[in-house]
Amino acid sequence: MSPRERLTLFDTTLRDGQQTQGVQFSTPEKIEIAKMLDQLGVDYIEGGWPGANPTDSEFFSNAPKTKATMTAFGMTKRAGRSAENDDVLAAVLNANTTAVCLVGKTHDFHVQTALGITLEENLENIEKSFQHIIAQSREALFDAEHFFDGYKSNPDYAVSCIHAAFNAGALVVLCDTNGGTLPAEITEIVGKVIASGIPGDRLGIHTHNDTDNAVAGSLAAVDAGARHIQGTLNGLGERCGNANLTSLIPTLLLKEPYKSRYAIGVKAENLHLLTLASRKLDDILNRVPNKHAPYVGASAFAHKAGLHASAILKDPTTYEHIDPAVVGNSRIIPMSNQAGQSNLRQRLAEMGFKDIDTNALPRILDVIKQREDEGYSYDTAQASFELLARRELGQLPQFFEVKRYKVTVERRKNKYNKMISLSEAVVVVKVGKDKMLSVSESMDETGSDRGPVNALSKALAKDLGPYSALIDDMRLVDFKVRITQGGTEAVTRVIIDSADSKGRRWSTVGVSPNIVDASFEALLDAINWKLVQEGAHVS
Amino acid sequence: MSPRERLTLFDTTLRDGQQTQGVQFSTPEKIEIAKMLDQLGVDYIEGGWPGANPTDSEFFSNAPKTKATMTAFGMTKRAGRSAENDDVLAAVLNANTTAVCLVGKTHDFHVQTALGITLEENLENIEKSFQHIIAQSREALFDAEHFFDGYKSNPDYAVSCIHAAFNAGALVVLCDTNGGTLPAEITEIVGKVIASGIPGDRLGIHTHNDTDNAVAGSLAAVDAGARHIQGTLNGLGERCGNANLTSLIPTLLLKEPYKSRYAIGVKAENLHLLTLASRKLDDILNRVPNKHAPYVGASAFAHKAGLHASAILKDPTTYEHIDPAVVGNSRIIPMSNQAGQSNLRQRLAEMGFKDIDTNALPRILDVIKQREDEGYSYDTAQASFELLARRELGQLPQFFEVKRYKVTVERRKNKYNKMISLSEAVVVVKVGKDKMLSVSESMDETGSDRGPVNALSKALAKDLGPYSALIDDMRLVDFKVRITQGGTEAVTRVIIDSADSKGRRWSTVGVSPNIVDASFEALLDAINWKLVQEGAHVS
Repeated sequence: MSPRERLTLFDTTLRDGQQTQGVQFSTPEKIEIAKMLDQLGVDYIEGGWPGANPTDSEFFSNAPKTKATMTAFGMTKRAGRSAENDDVLAAVLNANTTAVCLVGKTHDFHVQTALGITLEENLENIEKSFQHIIAQSREALFDAEHFFDGYKSNPDYAVSCIHAAFNAGALVVLCDTNGGTLPAEITEIVGKVIASGIPGDRLGIHTHNDTDNAVAGSLAAVDAGARHIQGTLNGLGERCGNANLTSLIPTLLLKEPYKSRYAIGVKAENLHLLTLASRKLDDILNRVPNKHAPYVGASAFAHKAGLHASAILKDPTTYEHIDPAVVGNSRIIPMSNQAGQSNLRQRLAEMGFKDIDTNALPRILDVIKQREDEGYSYDTAQASFELLARRELGQLPQFFEVKRYKVTVERRKNKYNKMISLSEAVVVVKVGKDKMLSVSESMDETGSDRGPVNALSKALAKDLGPYSALIDDMRLVDFKVRITQGGTEAVTRVIIDSADSKGRRWSTVGVSPNIVDASFEALLDAINWKLVQEGAHVS
Repeated sequence: MSPRERLTLFDTTLRDGQQTQGVQFSTPEKIEIAKMLDQLGVDYIEGGWPGANPTDSEFFSNAPKTKATMTAFGMTKRAGRSAENDDVLAAVLNANTTAVCLVGKTHDFHVQTALGITLEENLENIEKSFQHIIAQSREALFDAEHFFDGYKSNPDYAVSCIHAAFNAGALVVLCDTNGGTLPAEITEIVGKVIASGIPGDRLGIHTHNDTDNAVAGSLAAVDAGARHIQGTLNGLGERCGNANLTSLIPTLLLKEPYKSRYAIGVKAENLHLLTLASRKLDDILNRVPNKHAPYVGASAFAHKAGLHASAILKDPTTYEHIDPAVVGNSRIIPMSNQAGQSNLRQRLAEMGFKDIDTNALPRILDVIKQREDEGYSYDTAQASFELLARRELGQLPQFFEVKRYKVTVERRKNKYNKMISLSEAVVVVKVGKDKMLSVSESMDETGSDRGPVNALSKALAKDLGPYSALIDDMRLVDFKVRITQGGTEAVTRVIIDSADSKGRRWSTVGVSPNIVDASFEALLDAINWKLVQEGAHVS
């Protein structure tokens, strides 16, 4: 076997990823993400554009020490001044990073329309900028903007631009800036670039997902000989996002022909960090993770079809392209009316039940069916399903009993004549022989009213006697409501996602014509599930 | 120019899409989606598996008349019985669809491990099943399950399976069931299948997105000669989803080489329906639309980078791979509202506003932008949008003023020791000089508690003085809740659909961290909109 060629991975989550609509990193968040990327094993971390915005400059002043090459982004010098006298370029160099990546034009139309300069001036801007960077002993990369569109419009000019950068010492990254180039075109044009004299190990690819082909486009460029890939975690980025490194990394490590042909900086033994890294980035951004994300989504290994689920029980490779544990993910066999006893048995086994009474299976399925008719859904509410099964198997202790609750929402003018709202909840719980009476408001730290469900949640958790310490680290992370059919009437179905400090995340469901009551039921399940996990004993 | 070859599109949103974790269509929802798919112009609509679950059987009994070929899904007959005597197959045929699509094994490992039958028995199952279907004068399709994995394991056997189906008269669909096959492999294997004697116009592709390559894999199969593509709207489907038709349709219609080489059933003049179809499906599923979805996402044409935005103003093609209007989407330029004004003018004209004060347009856009930042959404809540515009144009009378409200939800044991809940609302309203104080419970005719929003709605409508008669026929028909981002905090967005006896149906939106408050705001808008329609005058 010949030695594997090295592919380098360039992460631009902190730069192009910051162009995502709705994303604005703080400096501490950038630092946290950079550390996470470094732990994962990417080769380059592009931290931002120093000088262009204060957060980016602050990040470079406080950048963590990384094995990955820290890279500052900027643009080629402007026409009519020398590279030495371009203040924008100077600010980029002042960040003192090992590598510098400059974007520049390669599409004649953009040179003339967007910049309004001559084709020759642009060539000189590229050449002089990279000579200047190399003279400062920095590693240089050229983001050849709109290269594929430029190549289709004027191949000679586009190629002359990248040769100018290459000859000055830069690694050349072919960017499909507008995201409209399909993989087959990328293969063809990368091949022609290599034939023009730029070797693959000095050539990279930067794609966008505007046609849903960013990952495929990156692989197409590698197939054609490029050896450097730019992308972002979770496919963040302008418009539809950049090439998703969260998808590319496991494909390069696990799939042929890449696995045998290439080596990357991410070690196979660190691949299990991938799911956590993806979820952590969503946490930082306060985004709901995409359940259907390749490799790392919560549903990426969920087997809903009954036929699939029964085959999975015989051999997981029947319906799984990889072992989910390899990327730090896990298998889910959801309950639904399409699934049968084999699903159920498997779910129970995963929950740690051994020697399941076979007679209990049809009984549990009956209860599920009846509750689904009432409007419940256990596809996502795995934790509620577990509690239901435990209850039927006689393995769910009654930790506490809710005797009653009352919640009030009031909206009125305050003393400054401003309309305000205030929610308050009283919950009465019996724990063992003790009756606990708790009251909570739903005000957050900014004085804003978070509503009745928040007030109830706080009051319920406030005093559960010996259990309070066990649920102290729980928090409500998502809350979904829909109107659905329950028997003959419309009911409200609430699904609550909870999380704790151990990285657990679980979903529970409540159903009632009354939205507050449905929420309360889901909250109760969330607490009970957590108490089971923590090994709580009935006092 | 040679005539364009025809590619057929097979939509399986209602079958494979139903395998998405968390998705469970009702029969009316299936009917609505089928009509939408037909309007778009797909060639086949796979409605479900009749006999396998009650909703699917009910759908076929009530299926709408479509131009698209309605297709029932099932599996090849089981071993040890004739096709005529297989009750599962009989149930599929009993749905009386024009086309029938059967899944069957082609991977030796699955035949032996999952089915536990001989390779010969499986071949016979395929052959006899399709002979039976063709004998019934149905159009037949064979979903060759795990074909690519099967081909890699035992190419001769995999190919013999699809030839058995092809020879019996079926169109052969190569399925990458586990989603692990990369596009280059698909090109190679499809080429070999065609070389084996199955012509491209009898060959289809069915991919899954487990490596983020489902769309690219479909295109790779077309490049290699396949002429039939299976997929789903919004890429719904088991695990990471199926090939996304919402991405594939515009690519096939707008991008080379597909645009010149192939014709599809979706007409170019209907392509603008795509964004609405995608959003409507999300609405039906109560899912938050993916802002970054290719072509149809709300951010797909959002230009955040300053350099991009200024170039877009000179010429939109500088940073857009297609014109967003072509797919029914629109451009977002956060820094400039110039693009928005013509849109807004058109919407106001549609609402019946004439002679709009041009100075008001930027002001209305500012308010919309600010409210969208707070979490409001006016995509569906047209009535709230109309009220907002009227208010800014000075054309919204203040019919009444809410001074305060208070709502209580209590859950406790009744005198029969049964847990019950009760919601009660007090609303204080000023109509002209009169102060009205109303109280309502939320009990329905069966004695069941309908919750705080219902109680508020009743109390609010109970005494609005002269207006009460005008809103007497209003009813709340749907209620959707989502957690969304409002500034830096999570807020609750409530959308309420109301209807009246004149057949009007309108949507309003409310946003607050407090769900009751958000609902109340949407209720107020619903009543105000209705009063405007009824021509109410301020008393």
